[in-house]
Amino acid sequence: MSKRLFNFCAGPAALPEAVLQRAQAELLDWQGKGLSVMEMSHRSDEFVAIAQQAEQDLRELLVIPDNYKVLFLQGGASQQFAQIPLNLMPEGGSADYIDTGIWSRKAIDEASRFGNVNVAGSAKAYDYFAIPGQNEWQLSADAAYVHYCPNETIGGLEFNWVPQTGDVPLVADMSSTILSRPIDVSRCGMIYAGAQKNIGPSGLVVVIVREDLLGRARASCPTMLDYAVAAQNDSMYNTPPTFAWYLSGLIFQWLKEQGGLDAVKRINDAKQKALYSAIDGSELYNNPINVADRSWMNIPFRLADDRLDKPFLAGAEERGLLNLKGHRSVGGMRASIYNAVPQAAVDALVAYMAEFEQQHG
Amino acid sequence: MSKRLFNFCAGPAALPEAVLQRAQAELLDWQGKGLSVMEMSHRSDEFVAIAQQAEQDLRELLVIPDNYKVLFLQGGASQQFAQIPLNLMPEGGSADYIDTGIWSRKAIDEASRFGNVNVAGSAKAYDYFAIPGQNEWQLSADAAYVHYCPNETIGGLEFNWVPQTGDVPLVADMSSTILSRPIDVSRCGMIYAGAQKNIGPSGLVVVIVREDLLGRARASCPTMLDYAVAAQNDSMYNTPPTFAWYLSGLIFQWLKEQGGLDAVKRINDAKQKALYSAIDGSELYNNPINVADRSWMNIPFRLADDRLDKPFLAGAEERGLLNLKGHRSVGGMRASIYNAVPQAAVDALVAYMAEFEQQHG
Repeated sequence: MSKRLFNFCAGPAALPEAVLQRAQAELLDWQGKGLSVMEMSHRSDEFVAIAQQAEQDLRELLVIPDNYKVLFLQGGASQQFAQIPLNLMPEGGSADYIDTGIWSRKAIDEASRFGNVNVAGSAKAYDYFAIPGQNEWQLSADAAYVHYCPNETIGGLEFNWVPQTGDVPLVADMSSTILSRPIDVSRCGMIYAGAQKNIGPSGLVVVIVREDLLGRARASCPTMLDYAVAAQNDSMYNTPPTFAWYLSGLIFQWLKEQGGLDAVKRINDAKQKALYSAIDGSELYNNPINVADRSWMNIPFRLADDRLDKPFLAGAEERGLLNLKGHRSVGGMRASIYNAVPQAAVDALVAYMAEFEQQHG
Repeated sequence: MSKRLFNFCAGPAALPEAVLQRAQAELLDWQGKGLSVMEMSHRSDEFVAIAQQAEQDLRELLVIPDNYKVLFLQGGASQQFAQIPLNLMPEGGSADYIDTGIWSRKAIDEASRFGNVNVAGSAKAYDYFAIPGQNEWQLSADAAYVHYCPNETIGGLEFNWVPQTGDVPLVADMSSTILSRPIDVSRCGMIYAGAQKNIGPSGLVVVIVREDLLGRARASCPTMLDYAVAAQNDSMYNTPPTFAWYLSGLIFQWLKEQGGLDAVKRINDAKQKALYSAIDGSELYNNPINVADRSWMNIPFRLADDRLDKPFLAGAEERGLLNLKGHRSVGGMRASIYNAVPQAAVDALVAYMAEFEQQHG
């Protein structure tokens, strides 16, 4: 009998149990067809239907306007860090980037290899504990685009507002926030997200891109990295990661069954409130992020005495609370509470934190 | 109850039933850890052990020398078509390519975007029904490498010999032949293969590259496409496709249980002999490929009257023989009989072919 524990991993992250059960049931024989989804030609009627349904459900969940393409690609957000300038920044051109933490800076470093990057705003002055308001930014009039990371998975900062960039396309790395609540896609020229947090398993990256931004790739852009080629071929220029695409489709269906993103937002709001309340109401735990800029998905916290880290983690594992260790660059703890992490997991964590504080506080 | 049919798909292709059963059994709870492999951090002890075991088993199966790195990447062979020149051909340099069919030409087209491609040998003069001997090639002394495709998945040609390229590294697209029989890795500078034929599910590409070829990437090469970066990071510069990697590891174990590649070669030899014999012994079926150059893995055949194609395919489906339709560029039929397609599948196909010929011949 399988025994499922509570998994707070930042990614690859927990998946909904109901989705895994369905994938398990049909792993050897998909809908009586006599083969696994993994064994189907990506050009078969069956797989094309799976792929199209997944796209349609994602469009419905995020209310994606018709003039946006949805691409199912490989290489993760890290490959997008190069793909974005290769597609959207002309040779010798420039782009504005906002630096709010480690993932922003990775995007900046890679883009700098392909053109002029203007760091138009930075959280550095706030030690990366707060997001600078747009009034503190220096956007360029001639930027090919403005790039930002709405949720910093490692630092635990999240924008609760959308930058205003006028006619300059806004590009958003939504890897760890997508599908956690409704968004207004039309505010962005492009959105991308590695799947392994709120979309599905690793090995898939979803790109949502406005059609007028297609067809601008540099001559030096590899064909496989050209968004226009992917769009023309319905993300099947070559064999796509079919199982990850299928599983993501199951997750989109599960999100619709939850009541869509309005309902998901309410659930996530309750989860984050419960955890931040537990942190803020204690003497032992601390989250350093400016309250208005706190992430709903990735909640880092430190213990007052870091010699308590090891016993805290050991006790958590004993209680089936997995992967609470913080990123090595930050230390302390981090609870990633993506869509697939239920309220019950947060409640169990909060109860354990109180118990631990009573013993060690 | 799941009912498994015989699947002759060219890729994504059949997977061993025993492997799918094991993946199914542990899909929600891997070895009592309380979570799926898909939900594990790629940097966890558990997943790193899975990944290392997979590499070690592949090294054992292919007898990969110690001075070769094994990389588990994304983007398929099509992304390699760009990655190879970006890593191995200097700016303004050139490389030799051998044209034996559609996949060779795709590699040639993409490489031509990054430098000078010399088509040093071509099967065109033989209408792509035979492989030109090396005495008919014009290799260049200053080529950065020689690229060839040992097995053409669509045309159904396979090299039964390895080109001699002296000090010039030989680069081989082994997507549809790798692991079908023993090879001498040391004859190649680099071998690559999309997983979705003989390795595992789609969304993974394996690269085996000699260490002295690392560190030559162009300045314009995206970080994610630089083999040296992948090698330095044990293929975890960013989140790899963990489930595909794990499943490939299960397949490597299954191949070892079969007795390794010597045993696999004997099984595949019997399968291909049975099918080619059925074709050659009939009046109705025909395979046009020069006998010495016939593929063991992908066997195209035509019916004497192509009005019989539809009834042939319909009858095959009725008997649970799936995906026998040939590639649209070739027409007719194609049976892909990779490692996971058992002798029983070939026997069933051969019996059906005889039955159909009796009725329609």
